[in-house]
Amino acid sequence: MTLNVVALLTTKPGSGPALEQAIAEVRSAMLAHDGCLRYDLQRRRKSETEYVMIEAYETTDALRAHGSSDEFVALSAALGELLAAPPEVIVLDPVGDQTA
Amino acid sequence: MTLNVVALLTTKPGSGPALEQAIAEVRSAMLAHDGCLRYDLQRRRKSETEYVMIEAYETTDALRAHGSSDEFVALSAALGELLAAPPEVIVLDPVGDQTA
Repeated sequence: MTLNVVALLTTKPGSGPALEQAIAEVRSAMLAHDGCLRYDLQRRRKSETEYVMIEAYETTDALRAHGSSDEFVALSAALGELLAAPPEVIVLDPVGDQTA
Repeated sequence: MTLNVVALLTTKPGSGPALEQAIAEVRSAMLAHDGCLRYDLQRRRKSETEYVMIEAYETTDALRAHGSSDEFVALSAALGELLAAPPEVIVLDPVGDQTA
């Protein structure tokens, strides 16, 4: 069953556009990772600094591989400059029927 | 473009199963609402009390209709007994390319 991940990101004031660009630049490489099904950036409505990544992976192994990939390491370094605090990464197991 | 919603829910100790059942019972009715695309419950890995709803709607109007539906009002009342704190409902706008 698909494994979902929700990551809550808060940028420093004014760093939203740079975050959006960093994610856009790496997104296709992330989706090319085996078992990465979704890597979608969202912005909290009415916020300039609060973002949420909605991600999905086929397996825990796929999530682990993502987390140790060169792209992820590089992205984490880049985001370190842009975020006001470390991201909250929430790994989720589905409960009951699922649409995706 | 699809509107995603992430709702963070923390139950009182031992109320997880009751929350899971309450969501399971109402899920098909929620998905029957016009423009409701996803209504999926997740549990935070290694947690007995932390849950996340991942929802998706075609439009803001669809989300509003969901929020004022009889099912939502009834569910909110039922969850009031089970949650340790009010849910954090995060309405999201997509940024850049999206998978879903």
